[in-house]
Amino acid sequence: MITLDVVLGDRSYPIYIGSNLLGQVALIQQHLAGKEVLVVSNETVAPLYLSKLVTSLEGYRVESVILPDGERYKTLEQLNNIFTALLEKRMSRQTTIIALGGGVIGDMAGFAAACYQRGIAFVQVPTTLLAQVDSSVGGKTAVNHPAGKNMIGAFYQPRCVIADIAVLNTLDDRQLSAGIAEIIKYGLIRDEAFLRWLEGNMDALIGRDMNALVYAVERSCINKAELVAADEHERGQRALLNLGHTFGHAIETAMGYGEWLHGEAVAAGMYMAADLSVRLGWLTKTDLARVEQLLLRANLPVKGPRISIEKMKDLMAVDKKVQDGRVRLVLLKAIGEAVVTDDFDAGLLDQTLQQCQV
Amino acid sequence: MITLDVVLGDRSYPIYIGSNLLGQVALIQQHLAGKEVLVVSNETVAPLYLSKLVTSLEGYRVESVILPDGERYKTLEQLNNIFTALLEKRMSRQTTIIALGGGVIGDMAGFAAACYQRGIAFVQVPTTLLAQVDSSVGGKTAVNHPAGKNMIGAFYQPRCVIADIAVLNTLDDRQLSAGIAEIIKYGLIRDEAFLRWLEGNMDALIGRDMNALVYAVERSCINKAELVAADEHERGQRALLNLGHTFGHAIETAMGYGEWLHGEAVAAGMYMAADLSVRLGWLTKTDLARVEQLLLRANLPVKGPRISIEKMKDLMAVDKKVQDGRVRLVLLKAIGEAVVTDDFDAGLLDQTLQQCQV
Repeated sequence: MITLDVVLGDRSYPIYIGSNLLGQVALIQQHLAGKEVLVVSNETVAPLYLSKLVTSLEGYRVESVILPDGERYKTLEQLNNIFTALLEKRMSRQTTIIALGGGVIGDMAGFAAACYQRGIAFVQVPTTLLAQVDSSVGGKTAVNHPAGKNMIGAFYQPRCVIADIAVLNTLDDRQLSAGIAEIIKYGLIRDEAFLRWLEGNMDALIGRDMNALVYAVERSCINKAELVAADEHERGQRALLNLGHTFGHAIETAMGYGEWLHGEAVAAGMYMAADLSVRLGWLTKTDLARVEQLLLRANLPVKGPRISIEKMKDLMAVDKKVQDGRVRLVLLKAIGEAVVTDDFDAGLLDQTLQQCQV
Repeated sequence: MITLDVVLGDRSYPIYIGSNLLGQVALIQQHLAGKEVLVVSNETVAPLYLSKLVTSLEGYRVESVILPDGERYKTLEQLNNIFTALLEKRMSRQTTIIALGGGVIGDMAGFAAACYQRGIAFVQVPTTLLAQVDSSVGGKTAVNHPAGKNMIGAFYQPRCVIADIAVLNTLDDRQLSAGIAEIIKYGLIRDEAFLRWLEGNMDALIGRDMNALVYAVERSCINKAELVAADEHERGQRALLNLGHTFGHAIETAMGYGEWLHGEAVAAGMYMAADLSVRLGWLTKTDLARVEQLLLRANLPVKGPRISIEKMKDLMAVDKKVQDGRVRLVLLKAIGEAVVTDDFDAGLLDQTLQQCQV
């Protein structure tokens, strides 16, 4: 088992990465606040892993809420179902919420923990590759609003993250690829050596080679933890983690949450960011081809769906990085070096949006 | 103008108390985060004071959301209306929310600020006595859930509190008395000298004597600021501010939010706490009569509505102070000295609930 630390003063916590961690009693129990636990999971994950998790919680009062599966259910309404369960079960401020699922469950369970009785403890047990390498680490919690993704939420750190690589065996191929999109992101924004490793090991990752997966999760979490520790509330460099996300969120919102997986939309968005970076003279066409090849080898899209340029720009204007009415984008100065900027020609953005559609 | 400070490290902020502060441009503008402002108010307050506030915001982009008036609207649904307004108006992370209203507006606007884009700036402009002396100070924000009051929320501090005493001129008598309930609370829990001042000046307060009101607001805010600074997240002594609130919240929930004003329910609840304290041998009957007299002189109830003891106890079990399945209450060791305890005989609580009903 590998242990990494997210260093945030009195909110610091460990990330555990390894195989078959779900049944390890001592690992999870040391991070519980009291004797009450609410497990939040979904209809896909609960039948597979809930009972295994519950065996690790003997001696505790364990309740659960099972939500429908999918991004379209990451809503204030489903969040309220968690609150109703907590209240009907008379769960106290000493309760720990355990998020057992992918990014949607982690984001919602974490936000519920942030708000219930103004804040209770929570633990992340991510069961998708995307959640293990990205969304479970760093304390961003949220629900979607019909008008914008992740617009309602809180910065709220978990007590620990338990990334059990063994659970990835039951993940479907499309979800696996979606997770790899966020892994590629770390290479592109700040870790060119990791990008080269990915180019050498993409077939192993797609083939679910356990050692390759463990290494990719570890290296991703190291990158994420460094950025979060340096800038918890995203006032600066943490925003680099949003490479492809302004484009991607617009795609997700336009298509209806869940039509495109988040990782798929981010993949197309990263390609758009790279394309615009070429138009700005920052990347070469060879760099762009390199990005394209890696995404395609991970079975990810490089083109977005057909959405009018006006609609894309309108949706991109609903973004947490907007300042003084200007959209700011994460773009690439080079492979492995991202920047946040609003200093780009609007005409070039139009060209990118036009070109990067199916 | 009086300025008090809530000392909370980098989240410290001033409370301004005085007359005709609403039109003071420099006072408010120094606390705004950027050039965008969303004023959240209600249908009663907005016609009276919104335009005056807006004149203080020249040079800013000012939008507003006007909610229906009353505790029954302190819901997740109304909160979502604030989010929808923010998103439809494309308001950025640099927006400041200004809460212009009583406790309901302050709690909801503050919670919206805590959650929108994971946190934007906000300013409290309380327009009821209750909000000026209690709810606007200290960063407790929340909405109600049908199963429990203030159960969904966040600790989230404002940039400043502007308590304009002049606006109390338009407050109705019932609301004025409700505010006095929370003022009396400070005397009972930790400030016996203030309680004596209240006994000497209750007629002036009820008669809206401006000097008496300013002093009562100031002294209340000093008490509140001290407790908040010592214990921001209510892990200890801040809970003393909940004198009468476990009883009171049960009354509010049982009757339907808004039937009893919060301050009225707290008044009856404080009398119940004092009654139970007598049964425990901590207060004398003379002390109890003193509490009763002061509440009655403030035109406040000392008896709760008819609710079965079982229902009261069931609702009281939904309380943020519950620990290990036991209800903890704020009771009085003496006038001016409150404690939080679960060490009371259940039979005595039954007697109190039985006796303290109309």
